[in-house]
Amino acid sequence: MIGLANQVIACCRRLAEFTEEPGRTTRTFLSPPMRDVHRVLREWMEALGMRVRVDDAGNLRGLHGRAAKRLIIGSHLDTVPNAGAFDGVLGVVLGIALVEALGDRCPGVFIEVIGFSEEEGVKFSTPFIGSNALAGTLTEDILNRGVSDAIREFGLHPEDIPAARLSPEAVAYLEFHIEQGPVLESLDLPLGVVDAIAGQSRLMFTFTGSANHAGTTPMLLRHDALAAAAEWICRVEAYATGVRGLVATTGRIEATPNATNVIPGRVQVSLDVRHASDEIRHSAVAFLKGAAIEIGARRGIAVELEQRLGQGAVAMDAALTGVLARSVEAAGYPVHRMISGAGHDAMILAPCLPTAMLFMRSPGGISHHPDETVIAADVAAALEAGVNFVEQLETTLV
Amino acid sequence: MIGLANQVIACCRRLAEFTEEPGRTTRTFLSPPMRDVHRVLREWMEALGMRVRVDDAGNLRGLHGRAAKRLIIGSHLDTVPNAGAFDGVLGVVLGIALVEALGDRCPGVFIEVIGFSEEEGVKFSTPFIGSNALAGTLTEDILNRGVSDAIREFGLHPEDIPAARLSPEAVAYLEFHIEQGPVLESLDLPLGVVDAIAGQSRLMFTFTGSANHAGTTPMLLRHDALAAAAEWICRVEAYATGVRGLVATTGRIEATPNATNVIPGRVQVSLDVRHASDEIRHSAVAFLKGAAIEIGARRGIAVELEQRLGQGAVAMDAALTGVLARSVEAAGYPVHRMISGAGHDAMILAPCLPTAMLFMRSPGGISHHPDETVIAADVAAALEAGVNFVEQLETTLV
Repeated sequence: MIGLANQVIACCRRLAEFTEEPGRTTRTFLSPPMRDVHRVLREWMEALGMRVRVDDAGNLRGLHGRAAKRLIIGSHLDTVPNAGAFDGVLGVVLGIALVEALGDRCPGVFIEVIGFSEEEGVKFSTPFIGSNALAGTLTEDILNRGVSDAIREFGLHPEDIPAARLSPEAVAYLEFHIEQGPVLESLDLPLGVVDAIAGQSRLMFTFTGSANHAGTTPMLLRHDALAAAAEWICRVEAYATGVRGLVATTGRIEATPNATNVIPGRVQVSLDVRHASDEIRHSAVAFLKGAAIEIGARRGIAVELEQRLGQGAVAMDAALTGVLARSVEAAGYPVHRMISGAGHDAMILAPCLPTAMLFMRSPGGISHHPDETVIAADVAAALEAGVNFVEQLETTLV
Repeated sequence: MIGLANQVIACCRRLAEFTEEPGRTTRTFLSPPMRDVHRVLREWMEALGMRVRVDDAGNLRGLHGRAAKRLIIGSHLDTVPNAGAFDGVLGVVLGIALVEALGDRCPGVFIEVIGFSEEEGVKFSTPFIGSNALAGTLTEDILNRGVSDAIREFGLHPEDIPAARLSPEAVAYLEFHIEQGPVLESLDLPLGVVDAIAGQSRLMFTFTGSANHAGTTPMLLRHDALAAAAEWICRVEAYATGVRGLVATTGRIEATPNATNVIPGRVQVSLDVRHASDEIRHSAVAFLKGAAIEIGARRGIAVELEQRLGQGAVAMDAALTGVLARSVEAAGYPVHRMISGAGHDAMILAPCLPTAMLFMRSPGGISHHPDETVIAADVAAALEAGVNFVEQLETTLV
């Protein structure tokens, strides 16, 4: 499988050259370089005898075989700005390589490989445009944010998006993706079987004290908004470290007036909390809200909160994930069950049909960066697991 | 004295209307509204029989009496942007009012009231232009930053700045100023006798960890630059609170990439440390540097430091400050000795001649803000203490 894995990696690296920005990889929703990506992938798919089309949400779709039950293998073809070569793209290329690896082996499974047009949300601040079209959840509101115009500009017809919906014969969705985190590397494992995509809360906390002269205001007469925020940031870190599987991040901070010689009067800090259990996530948010209020009250600092996002956890299908785990095991690799902290197209399709997801190790945990990479042996492992998965699925579906 | 104090306050409020920005008080070095300030103060001084001139550094100078020994009473006439009416200006107006209050009472003291042209450093990022001209420490380098051009534009002659130097007959400098902090108010006292102007260290600390995905990076695999900085900010606050008279402020913070869903990879935080003892200040800076490095080492975060300012403490003259303290006492007010956390023109003149400084309470500790104010009774107290000071000085000087 290693030869095919190397071919997959070379293809991803080649696709990374199709970019809107010279010298770095940036490829947003239906931007001109997406045509080149489609062309290269179409050539490979057609060489395998697949029937290829681009639907009216801009998704590249290739069909292999013809049977009553269809397995969808997909991921996305758009990128973040200054991206690596593998986030999303690898899942699509790996799907095509899997069709090649299978050859005529599983005639009972009708495979559709999909390269989603949009997942990152870069162009319209709205992620998952491609997979939402399949799920039938692409709203008028989203389309009116400029999405329709971009579709038309690419030569497609937004009024025909309903025809992009998932075929009723689709029985399973499988997504291959890089982990985008350091867990598999830290465990020295090539693959991870995803049990769920973590739910996510995002909030903005505002600490308001009194801006005052840094030289003339004694420590005990201060209401320092940054000192309060700092105490709370330490509390966030300590709390999340103590709860298994919880991550909590204070990624954004803005101080006012933000001058060396003025005690900060106002500080805004963002909070991002994720966990596979919505209950644990809600408890964490409640605790951290309470902590902020307690710290503020003790220091004479007003605390305001604003919820910016609340998204429930999405479980993968237990039975299909079991099939995937057995496929990994049958290929001779240890099965590591894990939670995805990032959102993926699988999250959008999970409510529509049984969904499973396989992670490949991310060296250095690096993603959304030109240094993002994968190990050829890990890609080969994923291909082997994929072949087993389709074989098992054929037996199950028969 | 309360009638004269009210007149002082009314004059300051009137001068606050002379501004570069309609609707708020902003008056930088030799900006056009400075002419109006000079005109109003000149009228009052001339009505008292004072000889008035503007020197070639733009300082307004009025002489009262004629004797061998001269007492300089001064403060500054420029303001910060969106200023209050009393920072600096009050000290000049109060000097004139003191001449009025003295009348012919102390013929042995030759008084020069000076309204310095620049102290805040707003226009050229260089403070104390006016008092440095008196001290003979206005360098070519400062003049070449645009200061000479501004002087010429105002109709003055930068080449004649040497003539602005302190007269050799000057034997003492006295500055009245608002406290600009909350200490006197918290003690319910009208006046404070300044023992020293605190030394000041300014540093920039850079914490460099690894920017990573907020969802996919477990807590224990993070190198979060903001969590490290927050721990250090808490340490700064705790340390300064434990050392009498020390203030330490982290006023400025910048996180990179500063995105809700990314663990901060790099955070810069400023540190401002002040104390009357240079030794205590240096120990504090050394301790806080060490703390940052220890926190960084434990967390896998690189810490870099850059010293931006290091300015020694400036003691007021002990004998002259003793005279001032006795003057306050003789006027019937408690003597509170204190440190100035902010810099003042007195700091520039202290190396040249015996210098003393009297603070008036700042209601709410508010300064550099339109809400900055003073209490008429406190201004009257300062005037009474000022009359006693000149009377004592006459005895001492005879």
